[in-house]
Amino acid sequence: MSQYHPVRFVDVRLEGSFWKERLDTVLATTILSQHRRLDESGALEQLKLPKPVPPLRHPRGANGVTVHVFWDSDVGKWIEAASYALSHRRDAVIEARIEAIIDDFERAQEPDGYLNSFYTEREPENRWTNLRDNHELYNAGHMLEGAIAYYETTGRRRWLDIMERFIALIAKTFGTGPGQKRGYCGHPEIELALVKLYHLTGEKKHLELASYFVDEHGRQDPHYYDVELEERRRRGIDNQLYAHGDYKYNQAHMPLRDQTKVVGHAVRAMYMYAAMADLAVENGDAALKAACETLWDDVMITKMYVTGGLGPSAHNEGFTYDYDLPNQTAYAETCASVALILWAQRMLHLDLDGKYADVLETALYNGALSGLSRDGEHYFYANPLESNGSAKRWEWHPCPCCTMNVSRLVASVGGYFLSTAPDGLAIHLYGGISASREIAGTTVAIREQSNYPWSGDIRISLDPEAPTAFDLKLRIPGWAKSFSLSVNGVPVTAQPVNGYVTVHRTWNKGDSIALDLPMPAERVYANPGVIMDIGRVALQRGPLVYCLEEADNAGGAVQRLKLPRDAELEAVRRADLFDGIVTLTAPARAIEPQDFTALYRTAPPRERPSSLTALPYYLWANRGQGSMVVWIPEA
Amino acid sequence: MSQYHPVRFVDVRLEGSFWKERLDTVLATTILSQHRRLDESGALEQLKLPKPVPPLRHPRGANGVTVHVFWDSDVGKWIEAASYALSHRRDAVIEARIEAIIDDFERAQEPDGYLNSFYTEREPENRWTNLRDNHELYNAGHMLEGAIAYYETTGRRRWLDIMERFIALIAKTFGTGPGQKRGYCGHPEIELALVKLYHLTGEKKHLELASYFVDEHGRQDPHYYDVELEERRRRGIDNQLYAHGDYKYNQAHMPLRDQTKVVGHAVRAMYMYAAMADLAVENGDAALKAACETLWDDVMITKMYVTGGLGPSAHNEGFTYDYDLPNQTAYAETCASVALILWAQRMLHLDLDGKYADVLETALYNGALSGLSRDGEHYFYANPLESNGSAKRWEWHPCPCCTMNVSRLVASVGGYFLSTAPDGLAIHLYGGISASREIAGTTVAIREQSNYPWSGDIRISLDPEAPTAFDLKLRIPGWAKSFSLSVNGVPVTAQPVNGYVTVHRTWNKGDSIALDLPMPAERVYANPGVIMDIGRVALQRGPLVYCLEEADNAGGAVQRLKLPRDAELEAVRRADLFDGIVTLTAPARAIEPQDFTALYRTAPPRERPSSLTALPYYLWANRGQGSMVVWIPEA
Repeated sequence: MSQYHPVRFVDVRLEGSFWKERLDTVLATTILSQHRRLDESGALEQLKLPKPVPPLRHPRGANGVTVHVFWDSDVGKWIEAASYALSHRRDAVIEARIEAIIDDFERAQEPDGYLNSFYTEREPENRWTNLRDNHELYNAGHMLEGAIAYYETTGRRRWLDIMERFIALIAKTFGTGPGQKRGYCGHPEIELALVKLYHLTGEKKHLELASYFVDEHGRQDPHYYDVELEERRRRGIDNQLYAHGDYKYNQAHMPLRDQTKVVGHAVRAMYMYAAMADLAVENGDAALKAACETLWDDVMITKMYVTGGLGPSAHNEGFTYDYDLPNQTAYAETCASVALILWAQRMLHLDLDGKYADVLETALYNGALSGLSRDGEHYFYANPLESNGSAKRWEWHPCPCCTMNVSRLVASVGGYFLSTAPDGLAIHLYGGISASREIAGTTVAIREQSNYPWSGDIRISLDPEAPTAFDLKLRIPGWAKSFSLSVNGVPVTAQPVNGYVTVHRTWNKGDSIALDLPMPAERVYANPGVIMDIGRVALQRGPLVYCLEEADNAGGAVQRLKLPRDAELEAVRRADLFDGIVTLTAPARAIEPQDFTALYRTAPPRERPSSLTALPYYLWANRGQGSMVVWIPEA
Repeated sequence: MSQYHPVRFVDVRLEGSFWKERLDTVLATTILSQHRRLDESGALEQLKLPKPVPPLRHPRGANGVTVHVFWDSDVGKWIEAASYALSHRRDAVIEARIEAIIDDFERAQEPDGYLNSFYTEREPENRWTNLRDNHELYNAGHMLEGAIAYYETTGRRRWLDIMERFIALIAKTFGTGPGQKRGYCGHPEIELALVKLYHLTGEKKHLELASYFVDEHGRQDPHYYDVELEERRRRGIDNQLYAHGDYKYNQAHMPLRDQTKVVGHAVRAMYMYAAMADLAVENGDAALKAACETLWDDVMITKMYVTGGLGPSAHNEGFTYDYDLPNQTAYAETCASVALILWAQRMLHLDLDGKYADVLETALYNGALSGLSRDGEHYFYANPLESNGSAKRWEWHPCPCCTMNVSRLVASVGGYFLSTAPDGLAIHLYGGISASREIAGTTVAIREQSNYPWSGDIRISLDPEAPTAFDLKLRIPGWAKSFSLSVNGVPVTAQPVNGYVTVHRTWNKGDSIALDLPMPAERVYANPGVIMDIGRVALQRGPLVYCLEEADNAGGAVQRLKLPRDAELEAVRRADLFDGIVTLTAPARAIEPQDFTALYRTAPPRERPSSLTALPYYLWANRGQGSMVVWIPEA
C-alpha cells in the first residue's frame, strides 16, 4: 500500500461547519485571552532577561507568584496555537505580540544557543542537571513546534533560526559520543518536535537526534536519572521531590521497545508514543512499530474512557491499572486527549487503519474538545465523566498546559482531515473543508461539505485540473453500522477494508461523491472489567458521546435518572441550544427523593415515569454548575 | 424520667459470646502486639527523658523516623485499652510493661507538672504555643483516660497522681482569669477526659475546666488560633502547615452552641460532641443539649455511612457536604466510628432514646469493629464500603490512633450494655454478660445470655437479693420489625416508647425474661440524595451490615453481581467460617465478562443466573485481598 502522509494545517481551509465555529471562537477570543492570561501570570514577564533586580534563586513556593520551569513551553505553545489560527486569518495585533515575544527570546538566548528563561535567570550553572523533572528539553520541543508553525504560517524565520541554534546546542550536548551527556527528557516532546523539524528542513540530523532520545529513554545500567541524581547530590543541588520511585512515571522504567503496558503520566506517555510512531514511520523501524501497536492495544482494551479521556488518577496525572476508570474522580487531562490525537494520527500513517482514526475522532469531539468552553476562555484541566455539581470551568491554571493544547488543536484541526499518497487521497474526518493537493501529478481541489457531526450526510467534490486516476479512500467510522456511497449519483458498493472504502477511478472536474452515514443514537456499554460502569449505559450518536446535565433535566441530580434498556432514543435538533445542536431524549425512570426523609430505610425509593435529555459531552458545564453523568444507570 | 447512668466497664463481665471472643483475642494478642509495635515505632523510646544524645529540634520529616507530637496519646490509649482488658483477666507481664511506662512518665514530668515528651525534649520553651495543631491537651486527655482506667482496674494511683498534677497545671494555665491563656485544643479529647476525672473524683473543678474548654471553643474576636498564630510569627516559630483556612477543620469556626452543621475532621468532631453531651448532662445545659441534638440530626440525616462510618474524605479526614458518601474512597476512619459510639452513649444518657443506642450498635458491630482484624493484630484506618481488591489491612501505621481506639473499644464494650437509674435498669445491647448493680436499694445480679448478633433469642435473668420493684427497660432495636417478650414465661404486651419497652414489677430472685427479636435478612436503601448508592441495595440482618467479598463469590469482581429486587434472602449458619457466623445468600444475576473483549461495545454484557453470598462487613479483608462491596447493584 502506498504511504500516506498528512496534509499540513496550512493547506486545509475550514469552511462553514462545526469546526469553523470553534476556530472562529479561538481566533476571536481564545488567542488574545490566552495572551492576556500568560501576561497576568508572569510567564511573559519571565522571558524578559536580564532582570533589573536579580530574582531569588529558588523562588518556587515563596513570595507569591511561583515561576514555573515549564513556562517557556506555554509561551511556545501559545505561539503555535496562534500561528495555526493566523493561517486562517492573519491578524496584525496578534502578530505584533508574537514578534515582541520573539524579541524576548532573542535577548534571552545565551551566546552558545541555550534558551531557557528559568535557568538562564536563576541557575545558569545548573542547566541540564535535572532532565527528569525540569522540562528543559520539553520546553525546547514546544518552542520548536511554535517556531515551525509560525514559520509555516508567516514565512518569518527569525524564531526558527533561534531555535535551530538551540537545537544545534542540544545535539552537541546529548548523545553517545565522548563528552556528551546520555540524557533524555523526563517529559517527552522534543522528540516529535525534532521530527517536525526534519519534515520541514529535510535534515537527517534532526531525525537522528530524535532517534537518539527515543533509544536512550529508559536505558538501564546505569539509568541516566540515577546518574544525574548522583551528580546533583554530589553538588548539593538536589532539591526536587520525586515521588514516583521506579521512573514509570516518565515511561523510563525500561527501554521503550520493551514496554508492553501503558504506565505513568498520561501526557508524557502519549507524547512519547507519538514520537515512537513518528520514528517507526521515518526509520521503517519494525520493532518500534510493534511496540507502538502493543501499547496502543493496551490503552484501547483496558485504559481509555469512552470520551477518549486518558489517565484516571490525579496522583500521577496518569495511568493506574487495567479497567480503572472512575467517573467522578477521572483526571482525564485535556492534554492527554490532545496527545492521544497526536499519537493516533501518527499510527494512522504507520497503517491506514480506521481504528486509529476512530480513536482520533472520539478524543477530538469529546475528551479534548470538552477542555475548551463554548465562550473560548474557560477551561477544564480534568475532564471527569460525572459531577455532583461542584465541577466548574476555570479561567486559568498555574500549569496552563491544557489551555494552549486545546487551542492549538482546534486551530490546527484541518490538518487531521486528509492524507495523501502519490496515488491516493484518504479522507479521515468529515465536516466542511477545502484543500488543494497534488495527487498523481495533478493538482486536485478537494471540498467536503456536511453538517457533521450533527448529520452523516456528506458531500465531497473533487476537481482535478485534468482527468487523473487515483484511489479515493473514505473512512467509514467504527460507529457507523451502515453507509451508502455514490459517485456522481451512481451507487458504489465497495466494502470497507480496515475502516476505509476505496474508490479507484479516473477523476474528472466536478466529480461529486455522496457518502451517507446514518447516525442513530446508540447505547454503549463498558467492559464488565470496568466495575464503575456496571449497570450503566452511555449514549453516543455519530462521534459524539452524550451526557445528562442538570440544566436539561429538571429535578436535581441527574444521577437519579435511569434509562430503561428498551426505551427508544430520539435525536432532536435543537436550534435553541448552543446555536443548534442535536440532543437525545428518551423515556426514563426518575427516582424520587421527596418521600425519603431518613438516610436509610428498608423500602426502596419511589420511582416515577419521566424523561431524560442528553447533551453532547463536550458542551457540559457551559451553563453554570450542576450535576452531570455520562454513564447513566439502566432501569 | 429518672436519670440513667452508664455502668462502668469494670462492673460488667463478658461471658461466652460474640464479644467475649473478641475480648479474648485482644487480651491474648492485641495488647502485647500493640506494645511491641509502639516499641518498634519509637513511641516508647521517645518517653525516656532526658536522652543521652540531644535530638534535632525539628526532626519531623528528616532522618528516618519521625517523632510525632501525638505519640504520648497513643501510649496513653494503649494503657487504657490494656487496663480494660486487665479488668477481665489480670496479667503480670502486661502490668509490668505499664509500670515501666509510668516510670518513664514520672521521670518525664517537669517540676511544674507539665508532661509532654515531645516538647520537653525538643522545644521546652515552646510549650502551649500551638494548641491548634500540636495536640498537647489532646495527649493529656488520652493519658488521663489511661490513668483513670488503670486506676479503676488495679487501684494503683501513681499515674493518676501524675496526671492530676498535670491537670492542675493545665487548669492554672488556661482560663479567663488574669495571666491565663484563653486557649483550647485543636483536637478535642481533654474535655471528655476531664468529665471522667470528675466522675471518678467528684471534684467540680474538673467539670469546670471541661466547661471552660467547651465554652471557649470557636470563640471569635479575637480567635485564639489567630492570637497564638500571631504570637508564633512574632517569635519566628510558625513552622506548621495548616491547610484548613477557616478552622472548620477543628470545629472552631464559631462557638459550639451556634453550630448546626457537622464539619471538619470527623474524629475531632465526634470527641467534641461527646464532651458537649457530657456537659449537657452534668450541667443541665439545655442550649448545649439542643446543639448536640441538632448536630446529631445533621449526621444521621445526611452524613453517616450505613456501617456507622463517618467522614468521606481523606483530604480533611472528615466531612464534606450532605449526602457525600462515596464507597470505594470512603475514609470512614475507625477512630471516627469509635468516637461516634462515645457520643451516642452520652446522648443516650441525655435522653434514653433508642435512636442513640441504634447508632451506637451500628457503629460498634460494623464501622468500628471492621478496624480490627480477626487475628487481632491487623488494622484498617480507613473503612471503605467498596474495594477493587487493593485494600489490605496493615500491621501498623505512622499515626496509630485507630489501633488502640478499637482495642480499647472492644476491651470496654461491657460498659455499653447497661445503664441504671435509682429505680431502674436499662439494657441497651444484647449478648452474654453478667453484672451486679444496686437498684432501688437492692443488689441485683443481672445476666444476659444469647447468641446475639447471630440470633435474637435473648434470655435475661435478674436476681435481686430481695424482692424489689423497679423498671426494667429493654431496648427494641430500630432494625427489629417485631418482638415478643415474656417474664417467667408469661407474655408481656408492652409497646416500646422511644425504643425501649418498660416492665415495671417487683422482681424476685430467679426471674427470667425472654426477649425474642426476629432477625430476617433485610434490604436497606439509601436516600436518593446519596447519588453513589442509587440503584444499589445493602443487606442487613440484626445489627450487622453485610458485604459481598470475593472469597465467598467465585468469578472475580463482586461488583459484577446483581441482586434482583424480588430475590429471597436466606440466612445460613456457617460453622465453617470464622468459628461460626451467619451469612446471607440469594439468587443473583452475574454479569459475564468473558465474551466482552473490547473496552466498549453497543451490545450489553451478558448476564447469567447465579447466586451471591454476603458476609458481615466487619469480617471483610481477613482472607487476603479481593474485591468487596456493601452496596450491591440491583437487577
